[in-house]
Amino acid sequence: MGTEKITINDVTLRDGMHAISHQYTKEQIAELTRVIDESGADIIEATHGDGLGGSSIQYGFSKETEETIIRTAVENAKSAKIGVLLIPGIGTIEHLQRAHEYGASVVRIATHCTEADISEQHIKYARDLGMDVVGFLMMAHMIPAEQLAEQGKKMESYGAGTVYCTDSAGALLMDDTRRRIAALKEQLTVEIGFHAHNNLSLAVANSIVAIEEGANRIDTSLAGMGAGAGNTATEELVAVMNKANIRHNIDLYKAMDAAEHVMKPMMKRPISIDRLSLTMGYAGVYSSFLLFAFRTAEEYGIDARDILMEVGRQKAVGGQEDMILSIAQKLASAK
Amino acid sequence: MGTEKITINDVTLRDGMHAISHQYTKEQIAELTRVIDESGADIIEATHGDGLGGSSIQYGFSKETEETIIRTAVENAKSAKIGVLLIPGIGTIEHLQRAHEYGASVVRIATHCTEADISEQHIKYARDLGMDVVGFLMMAHMIPAEQLAEQGKKMESYGAGTVYCTDSAGALLMDDTRRRIAALKEQLTVEIGFHAHNNLSLAVANSIVAIEEGANRIDTSLAGMGAGAGNTATEELVAVMNKANIRHNIDLYKAMDAAEHVMKPMMKRPISIDRLSLTMGYAGVYSSFLLFAFRTAEEYGIDARDILMEVGRQKAVGGQEDMILSIAQKLASAK
Repeated sequence: MGTEKITINDVTLRDGMHAISHQYTKEQIAELTRVIDESGADIIEATHGDGLGGSSIQYGFSKETEETIIRTAVENAKSAKIGVLLIPGIGTIEHLQRAHEYGASVVRIATHCTEADISEQHIKYARDLGMDVVGFLMMAHMIPAEQLAEQGKKMESYGAGTVYCTDSAGALLMDDTRRRIAALKEQLTVEIGFHAHNNLSLAVANSIVAIEEGANRIDTSLAGMGAGAGNTATEELVAVMNKANIRHNIDLYKAMDAAEHVMKPMMKRPISIDRLSLTMGYAGVYSSFLLFAFRTAEEYGIDARDILMEVGRQKAVGGQEDMILSIAQKLASAK
Repeated sequence: MGTEKITINDVTLRDGMHAISHQYTKEQIAELTRVIDESGADIIEATHGDGLGGSSIQYGFSKETEETIIRTAVENAKSAKIGVLLIPGIGTIEHLQRAHEYGASVVRIATHCTEADISEQHIKYARDLGMDVVGFLMMAHMIPAEQLAEQGKKMESYGAGTVYCTDSAGALLMDDTRRRIAALKEQLTVEIGFHAHNNLSLAVANSIVAIEEGANRIDTSLAGMGAGAGNTATEELVAVMNKANIRHNIDLYKAMDAAEHVMKPMMKRPISIDRLSLTMGYAGVYSSFLLFAFRTAEEYGIDARDILMEVGRQKAVGGQEDMILSIAQKLASAK
């Protein structure tokens, strides 16, 4: 397939932060950076799970400061570039400027898939700093392919060099992924990226489909370390890419060994698809809804999955968690 | 997609036997049968992991007798048909006759993908008994699609009502699956089935591809309970089939609850993709080679994965484990 090399953006130290409640120690960050760098990843993203400025009461404090996280990654990577994530509203221009000073050279400006508008200032600022700037369209299953491409065009116009289709809920089927990447590829001239979650057990498959449609930046993490059911496991995708003759820079054995001997022993729980994460992908809802839905369901004697399916149908976004209460009341009275 | 309903053949009590060293108790068999039956599976296969006659020194003794396994499943299923697996050479016509007396009404005659010839007698006998007879072509990644279809045609000519493409090593990519199912569908008139393993994290994706190409019997197991990296998890495939509007008889919530509350607590270890099972899918080798390869590698100071890759290249089949020694010697001297 093609001759273009796939760029691997490792998210073990960013999305993986969620899976360890942002509690990686400096030593763990150093060790993970070293093995990921040695395995050949092109970019290593190292930030609080919710991006720059995420360490807070609302999103959970990280063990180490933003400066320690970024500087430790920078100091321990010989070849890989270090990236950060920034969600406007959580992180600010000041955070970005400091991250750049700490040595980050890649930034992903992340917005809800319908909100590309709010990335303009941050993308332009990062561009002026000379950073590798990526637009990151989250919860990409919530709008059709054409609308996603329109949002991507905005990010491109602000100066993003890459635009991502980000399957935050792990809710995309293979055809859904194919349509979205094809639309982005057709409408944009910049590079296209894809970020998967494995809630429906399709992370590797969707990443391959994305590559088939022309995406050339793909997010992975060691052993799938990431929120919910986890991300695309580096070693699994690399095995499949090798078999499919897709070119990239990762050494399969090194990635397998890093996943098994470095990453897995650090995990608090194995990354797997359970009832909760499968429901999240099935309903296409934010993980922030899960716990509240299960608590409320118990209180009302109903099935939390029915609540979450309705939340998904109503296309709720983060911050609308109070919607759960009214849905629960309706479901309980309909019973 | 289509209007034909997919038939789900549950293998929790057969391939899943491998994952519990064939030690399910009678009570566990009864409980699993009940929840799988209630979730709506069409066929429940209940046999030693290596099929009828498999309980032995060579393949490991099962906790319960063949009679207890089959009769317990039959007695606890209200709707599902009970199936058995038979590998000629391990199981015999006498085993099949007794399994039928115990109440099994489906039988899968399993051979290496190039050895359909040896299924003739068993398929005809099962056909005469009035059973639902399935030809099961194992290690289907080892021959091209056209050759697989030729083998399938033989099974069809013997009287099999369904022919399976069986990805025993979890080594098929999506395009590989697509070509094989398409070839079987084009060359045969009987039903086509697909059995996946998740070594490359493609079990759900490959099952969907198989359905797209016209397969209408699909193997699944609760929480993926099965050899190596496990099979296609029922609850994951059902979630994806529901989203893709593929018709079937399974109740998603019941399958999810059965996986979480009945199956997972019985597991000795979580079903997951680790370094060993990933290597197996990557190299496309039998699981029986794994342990021996790792022992030999240690002895010779080489990487077991290099041995397994070479075993895969030489297209070794079960019984050729001694090949490992000569490969190890060559690798060690080349070092």
